[in-house]
Amino acid sequence: MPLLAALHQRFAAQPPFENLAVAACLHVTAETAMLVRLLRAGGAAVSLAASNPLSTQDDIAAALAVNHGIAVFARAGVDRNGYYRHIEAALSHHPPDLVIDDGGDLVNTLHTKAAALLPNVKGGCESTTTGVIRLRRMAAEGALAFPMIAVNDTATKRMVDNTCGTGQSAIDGILRATNTLLAGKTVVVAGFGASGRGVAERARGFGAQVIVTEVDPVRALDASLRGFRVLPMAQAAPVGEVFVTATGSVDVINADHLMAMRDGAILANAGHFDVEIDVRALASLAAAVHPDVRPHVDAYELADGRTLLLLAEGRVVNLVAAEGHPPEVMDLAFGIEALALAWLAGTVPTGGTGGKLPAGVHEVPADIDAEAAGLVLATAGTSIDTLTAAQLAYRESWRIGS
Amino acid sequence: MPLLAALHQRFAAQPPFENLAVAACLHVTAETAMLVRLLRAGGAAVSLAASNPLSTQDDIAAALAVNHGIAVFARAGVDRNGYYRHIEAALSHHPPDLVIDDGGDLVNTLHTKAAALLPNVKGGCESTTTGVIRLRRMAAEGALAFPMIAVNDTATKRMVDNTCGTGQSAIDGILRATNTLLAGKTVVVAGFGASGRGVAERARGFGAQVIVTEVDPVRALDASLRGFRVLPMAQAAPVGEVFVTATGSVDVINADHLMAMRDGAILANAGHFDVEIDVRALASLAAAVHPDVRPHVDAYELADGRTLLLLAEGRVVNLVAAEGHPPEVMDLAFGIEALALAWLAGTVPTGGTGGKLPAGVHEVPADIDAEAAGLVLATAGTSIDTLTAAQLAYRESWRIGS
Amino acid sequence: MPLLAALHQRFAAQPPFENLAVAACLHVTAETAMLVRLLRAGGAAVSLAASNPLSTQDDIAAALAVNHGIAVFARAGVDRNGYYRHIEAALSHHPPDLVIDDGGDLVNTLHTKAAALLPNVKGGCESTTTGVIRLRRMAAEGALAFPMIAVNDTATKRMVDNTCGTGQSAIDGILRATNTLLAGKTVVVAGFGASGRGVAERARGFGAQVIVTEVDPVRALDASLRGFRVLPMAQAAPVGEVFVTATGSVDVINADHLMAMRDGAILANAGHFDVEIDVRALASLAAAVHPDVRPHVDAYELADGRTLLLLAEGRVVNLVAAEGHPPEVMDLAFGIEALALAWLAGTVPTGGTGGKLPAGVHEVPADIDAEAAGLVLATAGTSIDTLTAAQLAYRESWRIGS
Amino acid sequence: MPLLAALHQRFAAQPPFENLAVAACLHVTAETAMLVRLLRAGGAAVSLAASNPLSTQDDIAAALAVNHGIAVFARAGVDRNGYYRHIEAALSHHPPDLVIDDGGDLVNTLHTKAAALLPNVKGGCESTTTGVIRLRRMAAEGALAFPMIAVNDTATKRMVDNTCGTGQSAIDGILRATNTLLAGKTVVVAGFGASGRGVAERARGFGAQVIVTEVDPVRALDASLRGFRVLPMAQAAPVGEVFVTATGSVDVINADHLMAMRDGAILANAGHFDVEIDVRALASLAAAVHPDVRPHVDAYELADGRTLLLLAEGRVVNLVAAEGHPPEVMDLAFGIEALALAWLAGTVPTGGTGGKLPAGVHEVPADIDAEAAGLVLATAGTSIDTLTAAQLAYRESWRIGS
Repeated sequence: MPLLAALHQRFAAQPPFENLAVAACLHVTAETAMLVRLLRAGGAAVSLAASNPLSTQDDIAAALAVNHGIAVFARAGVDRNGYYRHIEAALSHHPPDLVIDDGGDLVNTLHTKAAALLPNVKGGCESTTTGVIRLRRMAAEGALAFPMIAVNDTATKRMVDNTCGTGQSAIDGILRATNTLLAGKTVVVAGFGASGRGVAERARGFGAQVIVTEVDPVRALDASLRGFRVLPMAQAAPVGEVFVTATGSVDVINADHLMAMRDGAILANAGHFDVEIDVRALASLAAAVHPDVRPHVDAYELADGRTLLLLAEGRVVNLVAAEGHPPEVMDLAFGIEALALAWLAGTVPTGGTGGKLPAGVHEVPADIDAEAAGLVLATAGTSIDTLTAAQLAYRESWRIGS
Repeated sequence: MPLLAALHQRFAAQPPFENLAVAACLHVTAETAMLVRLLRAGGAAVSLAASNPLSTQDDIAAALAVNHGIAVFARAGVDRNGYYRHIEAALSHHPPDLVIDDGGDLVNTLHTKAAALLPNVKGGCESTTTGVIRLRRMAAEGALAFPMIAVNDTATKRMVDNTCGTGQSAIDGILRATNTLLAGKTVVVAGFGASGRGVAERARGFGAQVIVTEVDPVRALDASLRGFRVLPMAQAAPVGEVFVTATGSVDVINADHLMAMRDGAILANAGHFDVEIDVRALASLAAAVHPDVRPHVDAYELADGRTLLLLAEGRVVNLVAAEGHPPEVMDLAFGIEALALAWLAGTVPTGGTGGKLPAGVHEVPADIDAEAAGLVLATAGTSIDTLTAAQLAYRESWRIGS
Repeated sequence: MPLLAALHQRFAAQPPFENLAVAACLHVTAETAMLVRLLRAGGAAVSLAASNPLSTQDDIAAALAVNHGIAVFARAGVDRNGYYRHIEAALSHHPPDLVIDDGGDLVNTLHTKAAALLPNVKGGCESTTTGVIRLRRMAAEGALAFPMIAVNDTATKRMVDNTCGTGQSAIDGILRATNTLLAGKTVVVAGFGASGRGVAERARGFGAQVIVTEVDPVRALDASLRGFRVLPMAQAAPVGEVFVTATGSVDVINADHLMAMRDGAILANAGHFDVEIDVRALASLAAAVHPDVRPHVDAYELADGRTLLLLAEGRVVNLVAAEGHPPEVMDLAFGIEALALAWLAGTVPTGGTGGKLPAGVHEVPADIDAEAAGLVLATAGTSIDTLTAAQLAYRESWRIGS
Repeated sequence: MPLLAALHQRFAAQPPFENLAVAACLHVTAETAMLVRLLRAGGAAVSLAASNPLSTQDDIAAALAVNHGIAVFARAGVDRNGYYRHIEAALSHHPPDLVIDDGGDLVNTLHTKAAALLPNVKGGCESTTTGVIRLRRMAAEGALAFPMIAVNDTATKRMVDNTCGTGQSAIDGILRATNTLLAGKTVVVAGFGASGRGVAERARGFGAQVIVTEVDPVRALDASLRGFRVLPMAQAAPVGEVFVTATGSVDVINADHLMAMRDGAILANAGHFDVEIDVRALASLAAAVHPDVRPHVDAYELADGRTLLLLAEGRVVNLVAAEGHPPEVMDLAFGIEALALAWLAGTVPTGGTGGKLPAGVHEVPADIDAEAAGLVLATAGTSIDTLTAAQLAYRESWRIGS
């Protein structure tokens, strides 16, 4: 995780969190350990609760506590009561100046059972879409007491995570599950958002003929202008050999589409939830189901003898059949989180307004996103130009008009 | 111009401009004729002045007046006084409900010499960056009396115009000027905005090894993640064989870079203004200049015997050495303009708020951009999916949170 | 295996092997079962020995014998004597008209212990490079008694097997072993033959910046003209992040290159033999080796603290870390073999000279390769044009000259 | 022309043609001047006749004679008698040791009117397909008295000339003629030989959706495996927006196809002869023809109101609407010619058998092709690896078998 390593050096030299306490609720894994140690190196007093008891790795929890001075409140397999007690303990251990949340439970607990701590909180970060939705509802009701930065979605993260990460791991999952040759195959990609575009470009890079389906005309036009064939799913269904859904929508491949498909068609979902392929419809169409003809491949035999191959039961193929995001993605996500937190602490001079945001849900400032992108480039050994004084002046004059 | 043709059919069937007058200040060309005839077909009383007397084609002006019922106030080569008189005449001919401007002179005249007409104006469109800058200054001073839509920049137009249009016409201009073989050549593209990306991808599509230079780390990372080599210009200068600037900045290629270049290097600018390559520095470095060794190619012979080839005197190579935008770009730009005007007229049910914008400069609403994209697809014979009721409900539930 | 299935239909309708016996020496696997059943469906009396006792699947051997009328002489784990006895038994069971060999042992046995059967043999196919080398030596000594077709190398197989199959499975192996993000990474591909080109294009398709190294100027120029950066390995070594060898040569990555590499560089071999990366040099340079930091990844820690990651111990990463060829490759290889055998049988009217080849080693006739390509297209549902009479006449006139 | 410049340096330092006379029959142009001056620098006594009186540039002829010591026999616009007299004069001026021909007239004259000179001739080069056909017929009849090398077709020239040169100039010609936006367009490329592949890849590189038609299944499969959609022309005709023929065949686009096309379809031929699009059928289908609606664009209006746009009257669009080959192609072609001639002279140690070929038509030796490729790379500043002694030994051992 080169970005976190670079930040470690920087924060150790100029600690942004001196005299500040951070309460974090995160999956207790090796990657998280890197993040909280980074905060610690930056001067923070850190307390950590698990955002999910099932993912807690006890040895890592122990090492953080024993070797790195982190106050850890987490144990694998703890029950629901224990889970919330851990969060409360993490909050009360050091009254937090800053928080990191992963789903919303820490912020919720802070506003209910630990409301006395609220005046001390400068702000925090939330990394999941679900958590952001909860925060926005709180904010809409006027109930959110401090600023929270939604670190889930920035231009940089969209490129690295969705287009490159999901694009690669979706293809990876399909190859691991099926070992099918993509060259010459007709691959149908449903959805041409950042993820779908990543899948489509990578399938093309392996020699596939790619068809894109979309409901949004701007995205459909984008696909078309990049040389992809754009069709409605009803027309793509009978010609596709591999289908990948990446829409965020529901029943993108439905019973009618399934009935029209070729024998041997492969169905994979790269979207977050297992709703994009109508698996129930597939099951009801099938005369017989042969589970696990290969790992993560179920063969649905239709009445007319055709067989459709469903990967990962319609769940996200990237995670089920491959390993999900490459480590570079988590490195970037945690790096943005650490930069945003330092910015909230108000001690890192990226923008000048750090620590002075109003209560509410906020985007990651563009400066921080740019800083993260710059660090990714720098750790890869890539350097870029900087604007000269004359160029800055020219840009300024242009913005003003002459 | 298939998009304007499709709108012509639609507007003729359901006229959005009945009982409305439109005053337009535009280049009087064949393409403009298509636009004003479309407005006329949509029920508008149209008066037209020239936005530049040098580009006025008198035969087209005459045909619009005689055959199509447009009140035209334009003559090629008219002087400055005549120019403004024409604008005033266009404004007073029918007191306008809507305006179309191309640089800001009509709106300015309206607010000064024809201020009596202001209360009648619902709004208008401005298509140039310069015009938008003037409008923003007026708005900042509280002087803009009605809403103006900046039609210059939408997601759709950025794709078609900058990435595809500029990307293609820059390569086209370089080939027409030099006939050089791009395959195997090292092409350096300065700037990875929408235009620069278009140039870079097309150069790669012709077999070039492409290097990108940038000052913005997010764009630089984007280039890198798409497989382009990213270097500072100082490192790119000695290895490049063809240089294309597309930054919007000044002196992107400067004396130091020029001194480092290989013999025979080709220099082209795809940016709007001729400031990106420091031509003055090049001239002062040259021991001799051989103008027009081919049309639009000047050979600068340096003291050490190397020769650098400057295309189009550093002006925009797309326009000088090729023909500028393909017609599809103007079709889209005018189509967005017509849709925006109809929306301002408040009679086309795209959004519901048409005609009720406050005074000020506004972006093109996303719905109108999507509508334009959909029309481009439809006229090319491409159809796409539409959200089902279940998918709409799912999206809605997701936005709200569960 | 759609190609074999299509041939099955064809051969069942018009049996090419009636009254002919085929003796085959092949890996006794599910794929081989498809091939020998196809020959049986084509009318042949088939006897089968194992080309390697370690790969024999006894259940498949039994099923072929019991259900499909194949005379099988194979048992898993049989010793060397048993191995050769099985070959002799397969030869003597039906005196063969045609043979299929996989390494040369059947043909060798036929010329030594079973020479009495030679006069009956019309010819055969050999599918391995090793076997072809043995046959060429026999032919050079005048010892080969009948024609053998080397089915290993045809234009079609080179595309499907080397470029697409190896290209895909090499990337697949690297991703399974490392889960590294390829986008933005500098990938060095050594060798730009059919396999290397496949790897390079697929790495680029995933967003990598690809550098190619070559010793052959024609191939190097090919890489350059396709937009790849071409460097000597000594210059590529310090900038690469992932290295893939596909040269067929030895020590392509040597001690000097290893010493120059970046910390964390990944080393993978996609060539047949484990000689392309000098693993011995790597071991001797290492201060410590951490085997299996992930499956198939050994971390070599150098004295200066840098770590190099060797995949699959330098053996072919496609097979060790992934699953080797996609099934489409074996389908094509066996399809060509079946078509060549039918052509040798002289009863399928593809060329007219079937069955009349002189003794010696022969290439697959172009007509048969074209027929295989046509079948691959047809089974994918792709149809192509055929020359009209006028076009045939034009081509003929052109060949003659006017 | 960097390759000729590099050879000039080499030949001046080590003259391969000392005491040898070369008789050449070539277009008397600036490029030819470079070649004959190179031969002169290499020590040859050179006499030059024009291969076509219409292309003779008198000023260049004069400069070669006056300044460079070439015996030139050429004048623009000379009649048929004068043309042959010039060839005879070039032959008799110095009895040639080596010849360069461009169509076959010099070699023919040498065998008929100047047969006395034949014993002195070591061999020569022929650069056109037509000339090679004539030579092969002479050789078949036993009438060719010395070895002639067909320099038209080598692996290197096929890449640079057909794939890159024709690929680029075909797109260039289409853009100059139509200025149409390729992004998002459906482009149909007929023929997937080296030229067609070049066109198809470049159209895709500009964002087009490319369909390939073929009659050869191996080429069709190649296109499919590279991700192109493959269709018969009858199915491609109604969906294509731009058609490019590159087959070398006749009536590839016929009346039935024309009748099926979309309004506004663009028809371009990139093949050598104007037979690929059935222009006569198009004319007979047209209700009206509007010639030159743009330069090199004729609009054929069909009875039903559709319009088809024929570029360059169906002649090779690369040459008619653009400038044909980039100079790099001619540089390579002449470079191969010069290397082959030096090899024939027997004094340049590339292979060892130079000057000892039997009479007949010969391919360019692979060593010479590799040398040309190496020079192209070197002049572009690209260096490559060389085989080490150990690698050479390994390769040798492999060829022999172990």
